[in-house]
Amino acid sequence: MISPARSAAKRPATDGRIRVAQVGLGEIGKSCCRVTAGKKILQLVGAADIAPDLAGQDLSSLLGIDLPSPMTVFGSIPDLIEAARPDVVIHTTGSRLETVLPQLEEIISRSVSCVSSTEELLVPDYRNPAAAERLGKAAVKHKAALLGTGVNPGYVLDLLPVVLSGACRRIDSIRASRAVDLATRRQALQEKAGVGITREEFRRKAAAGRMGHVGLMESAVLICRTLGWREADLRETIAPILAREEIRTRKHHVPADFVRGLNHIVRLEQEGQERLYLDLRMNMLEPEPGDWIEVRGDPKMEFRIPGGMPGDDATAAILVNTVPILAAARPGLHTILDLPAVRYCS
Amino acid sequence: MISPARSAAKRPATDGRIRVAQVGLGEIGKSCCRVTAGKKILQLVGAADIAPDLAGQDLSSLLGIDLPSPMTVFGSIPDLIEAARPDVVIHTTGSRLETVLPQLEEIISRSVSCVSSTEELLVPDYRNPAAAERLGKAAVKHKAALLGTGVNPGYVLDLLPVVLSGACRRIDSIRASRAVDLATRRQALQEKAGVGITREEFRRKAAAGRMGHVGLMESAVLICRTLGWREADLRETIAPILAREEIRTRKHHVPADFVRGLNHIVRLEQEGQERLYLDLRMNMLEPEPGDWIEVRGDPKMEFRIPGGMPGDDATAAILVNTVPILAAARPGLHTILDLPAVRYCS
Repeated sequence: MISPARSAAKRPATDGRIRVAQVGLGEIGKSCCRVTAGKKILQLVGAADIAPDLAGQDLSSLLGIDLPSPMTVFGSIPDLIEAARPDVVIHTTGSRLETVLPQLEEIISRSVSCVSSTEELLVPDYRNPAAAERLGKAAVKHKAALLGTGVNPGYVLDLLPVVLSGACRRIDSIRASRAVDLATRRQALQEKAGVGITREEFRRKAAAGRMGHVGLMESAVLICRTLGWREADLRETIAPILAREEIRTRKHHVPADFVRGLNHIVRLEQEGQERLYLDLRMNMLEPEPGDWIEVRGDPKMEFRIPGGMPGDDATAAILVNTVPILAAARPGLHTILDLPAVRYCS
Repeated sequence: MISPARSAAKRPATDGRIRVAQVGLGEIGKSCCRVTAGKKILQLVGAADIAPDLAGQDLSSLLGIDLPSPMTVFGSIPDLIEAARPDVVIHTTGSRLETVLPQLEEIISRSVSCVSSTEELLVPDYRNPAAAERLGKAAVKHKAALLGTGVNPGYVLDLLPVVLSGACRRIDSIRASRAVDLATRRQALQEKAGVGITREEFRRKAAAGRMGHVGLMESAVLICRTLGWREADLRETIAPILAREEIRTRKHHVPADFVRGLNHIVRLEQEGQERLYLDLRMNMLEPEPGDWIEVRGDPKMEFRIPGGMPGDDATAAILVNTVPILAAARPGLHTILDLPAVRYCS
């Protein structure tokens, strides 16, 4: 049912596989490359990163895997696209739409579809309607499909609750929580969660809008729009989790009374009734990591992933598994709920 | 993101709601009417059933709810469509494509989209490729969208496992089971499961292909096609569950050693490895009703609905919640995995 995008007409004749290029070679980007390289229906055709120490490197060595043909990391998106002629780009460079907007424009203006881990792109018009309008028009004009997704946002706290709601005759409320053990996650995420800083520094950063998980509010907005709840009523709190005692692992050290993680909550109440409750805890040595979704209504449903879905690995899986869906999508700026839901691709 | 189908151009001017008609007024059909009547974005515009005792009845009395305007049950699909001018028909009359084919043709040949609970329609070309081809051509020609779904098949043992697979880097196997307490379900389903018949009669019927749950194989085929597994390797077993002791409830009586339910299993092995295991137990006074899905791979995921998703109610919910998705779909014969996943509609 899924066929390569029509916009791929000018690309080199291939064996029917979808040509995939990677933009951004951080941990998630490298993981995307490895997953892509293992798929029968996808062909990894190149990668780019603007980091000066990455451009020019041998991709195979960087990934630690054998690739069918040698590839060198490109230092710019135009160079990558011109040389590699991808059907779809997987983009993993940043959380904020404002930061990545020029990159996304470079991709779609070349008629290449793009699936991105940019958290704000889950509901692009929520924080940056001007950027969303620009991207939407450019995507249609250049016949490219553009989508933001990942595991959080994009899956555990939005797609799964929404799909569960589909079997309900009545919905009273949706509650979902995700507790992540940051000791098992990449350093960048630990820093985003404030690990190792003081309570005062956390408060200062939170007041400046620089703490919290970019994407939690996006998940809540997507659910509200889908279920007809007022997104203007959403309320969020971001609080530090402090280390009562010193935390020391082989790799990490958090002194007592310093920040070991954060608790980010988004809630919606309507007429005194709680409708939506999303609770994200990202914590060093979190005692009870796991994902949990409860849909209260008729029927009542409960979903658990004991231990929790591994964030970085699952984000790479979701981005790569989304490629065939995006390649078959009509041009435009999509959300995950406009398109067929992600499923494993072989 | 979802707008009424283009094929609705000739229908009466409305307030923007999608006009929905019901075909089939068994328990699930009546439930669909009630759910539809409670939705803001849908308008119940009529219903039909071929049963002579239903045609001509007052729909409101039949449903036991107040409807905004009086409606009489039609005795034929053409009469219903001519009078009610629906955008979408919800169709709940039978499990077998061969039986319902003329009804589906009556609907889509009038350019009306249709979501049906017909179990074989989940993967229409699997058992009846000729019918699937006819329906597909007619749907495109008459600009109607056609889809088969429900809770089983359509959700618990196919859509949910497939959506869970979307977060996997690697899939080793999918195991899912559904245990239904038939004492809580409609009589028609109890009869389908052989409740109250002898072991010998069960075996005779099973040998003649008349036992087992229509749709379990369809769920397995949909998963195989999605994940690239060989559907030709699927194997099924259908075994009776016998009452060790007499079962007596207010409504039911099963003598000892008679059939109290069935256990239907579909499996796929490849190279000695189990890849897929779907286990459906439908049983009078089932001791442990519940749904359970396990995706083994990277990561491993487990999903449980304690007590199980209520089949009839959830099927009605899923059919009604699918209406806006179908109204926005391009013309043609779809599967649930071609379209955006079902979600609650308000």
